[in-house]
Amino acid sequence: MPELRHDPIQRRWVIIATERARRPSDFSVSNPPSTSDKCPFCEGKEAYTPPEIYAVRDHGGPNEPGWKVRVIPNKFPALRIEGDLGRAGVGIYDKMNGIGAHEVVVESPQHVFDISDLPVDHIALILKTYKERINDLRKDPRFRYILVFRNHGLTAGASLSHPHSQLIATPVTPRIVAIELESARAHYTLKERCIFCDIIVQELQTRSRLVSADKDFLTFCPYASRFPFEMTIIPRYHSHDFAQEPDTQLDNLARHMKEVLLRMRKALNNPPYNLVFHTAPSYHLQSKRPGYWTTIEQDWHWHIEVLPRLTKQAGFEWGTGFYINPTPPEDAARFMRETEI
Amino acid sequence: MPELRHDPIQRRWVIIATERARRPSDFSVSNPPSTSDKCPFCEGKEAYTPPEIYAVRDHGGPNEPGWKVRVIPNKFPALRIEGDLGRAGVGIYDKMNGIGAHEVVVESPQHVFDISDLPVDHIALILKTYKERINDLRKDPRFRYILVFRNHGLTAGASLSHPHSQLIATPVTPRIVAIELESARAHYTLKERCIFCDIIVQELQTRSRLVSADKDFLTFCPYASRFPFEMTIIPRYHSHDFAQEPDTQLDNLARHMKEVLLRMRKALNNPPYNLVFHTAPSYHLQSKRPGYWTTIEQDWHWHIEVLPRLTKQAGFEWGTGFYINPTPPEDAARFMRETEI
Repeated sequence: MPELRHDPIQRRWVIIATERARRPSDFSVSNPPSTSDKCPFCEGKEAYTPPEIYAVRDHGGPNEPGWKVRVIPNKFPALRIEGDLGRAGVGIYDKMNGIGAHEVVVESPQHVFDISDLPVDHIALILKTYKERINDLRKDPRFRYILVFRNHGLTAGASLSHPHSQLIATPVTPRIVAIELESARAHYTLKERCIFCDIIVQELQTRSRLVSADKDFLTFCPYASRFPFEMTIIPRYHSHDFAQEPDTQLDNLARHMKEVLLRMRKALNNPPYNLVFHTAPSYHLQSKRPGYWTTIEQDWHWHIEVLPRLTKQAGFEWGTGFYINPTPPEDAARFMRETEI
Repeated sequence: MPELRHDPIQRRWVIIATERARRPSDFSVSNPPSTSDKCPFCEGKEAYTPPEIYAVRDHGGPNEPGWKVRVIPNKFPALRIEGDLGRAGVGIYDKMNGIGAHEVVVESPQHVFDISDLPVDHIALILKTYKERINDLRKDPRFRYILVFRNHGLTAGASLSHPHSQLIATPVTPRIVAIELESARAHYTLKERCIFCDIIVQELQTRSRLVSADKDFLTFCPYASRFPFEMTIIPRYHSHDFAQEPDTQLDNLARHMKEVLLRMRKALNNPPYNLVFHTAPSYHLQSKRPGYWTTIEQDWHWHIEVLPRLTKQAGFEWGTGFYINPTPPEDAARFMRETEI
């Protein structure tokens, strides 16, 4: 059973994966298979993965060919689904069992290069799959937060090149998400306005950091971007929960995302990147801790972080949480805007 | 002039290096020179660096051969020394001028592989140089914090292989340091005990995470280690400020550090790594904001983070501040202890 451990000084949780413990010799760098002939995520190789949790399919039964998007448990999960939380103190430290869910969303039966190679209506199917899985996992009262993320490229942490994304449900609210929730609530308490809506107004007026805007969605390079060419994708209208978006909006988001990801690929020559969805935390927390997040429908605004991985993090970044970004977001946004796709 | 920008949602500062702005084509990966014949940090190549700020030398004048440790301004500084802070709001955002200091400590006139190749008395000279530079930079009332760090190996962010470390003085307290300071103060307020001293007592009793302990210093793998084989080096006695340690203690620290770094090199086969010094913030802040850090001499305890860079950070880590560590610190510590050096 993996363990969740809390650092009382840095106030963060760490997953200690006790079951797949690695010795020093296990850390040598190996390249993942780049060809599709041995890929367990390709159509027809369903037997090489754990049995599917969910699939969007044209024909065929579970774990047979015929699917378009397929959700499976991670073969090497960071957290385990079975068991209770077992919260305990260990002297000055805190721990709990590594309870959670870790799922893989195989985005396409074909071994294409990137999600942006897929047609808009297929990208929409993937987004609807996220929504479906988030809403299902939220029924489990042990989970506080469900994170959807996507690693593309070896240096961004993708160990298999077949296009896929992941969901991790955690029994604690992750530190960065908790900081964002607190900031948004503090702003709302002071002003009775959503801080993200305020930022959207400013970005639409300033325009210099805008990458793309349509009727419903907006992409901009954040004012204090940590990374070169970092982008935020966010609905223009106030909406606190990705998993409550109607399917028609996910169709629009798919169109917007495809354009933005194609711009990034073209501008940066197929960079490694991460996508991270920051949506609302699980609702049962509200009822269990009354008053804690009672304004979340007003104060939170879901968004997607797009993080190209072009720079290395060194001692300064790890030691301080400070970042040095060599590309001003205004330059990055202009370059993205001017890229022809 | 670089700019410091504040993110109001994630509550962190970013240095936007506007002067060395990089376009997408600048991010191609290039290997640093691994041979010493073109190295600007080697003895005899003093003319290839900016003029020195400080040096420990046997003979010769400034910027001539004969030095043992040499401090120079970073040729590509993240922050600039000249100017005022220029704090300003930009709509909902905050910024200030990128004022600070960015120095390079060239640790040896010879192009050795790592600091752990140097004799103990030479490592002590390097530590005394840090102390000297921290105490000098603290006289500048614009600086809130002075961070000493060391990057070893390309994947840990070292762009030159000649052994060197860096100092960055920042006009704001970095987020991770601020969180640590707050945690330590909260513990002290509640218990009138230093949280680090409590941790040291527990680690010495538990022993399973101990790597090395002598009369004055202790190295252990933290209970909630973010990274495999992460270690903390800390004085066993209560001491809030590295820069006030007497030179005799820095001699003892040099001996302890050499042993620990050699264990890590041997156990992990010359891994890339970062060292990060977390010492007390600059004192003038106390007098400017009375009551804010008045207990720092009691509640803070300086320490050094040792971070081997064996794993990659992916979307989950960037998106949440959560870490997945595949090596339990108890296993890591046992392996380090049992490594013969």
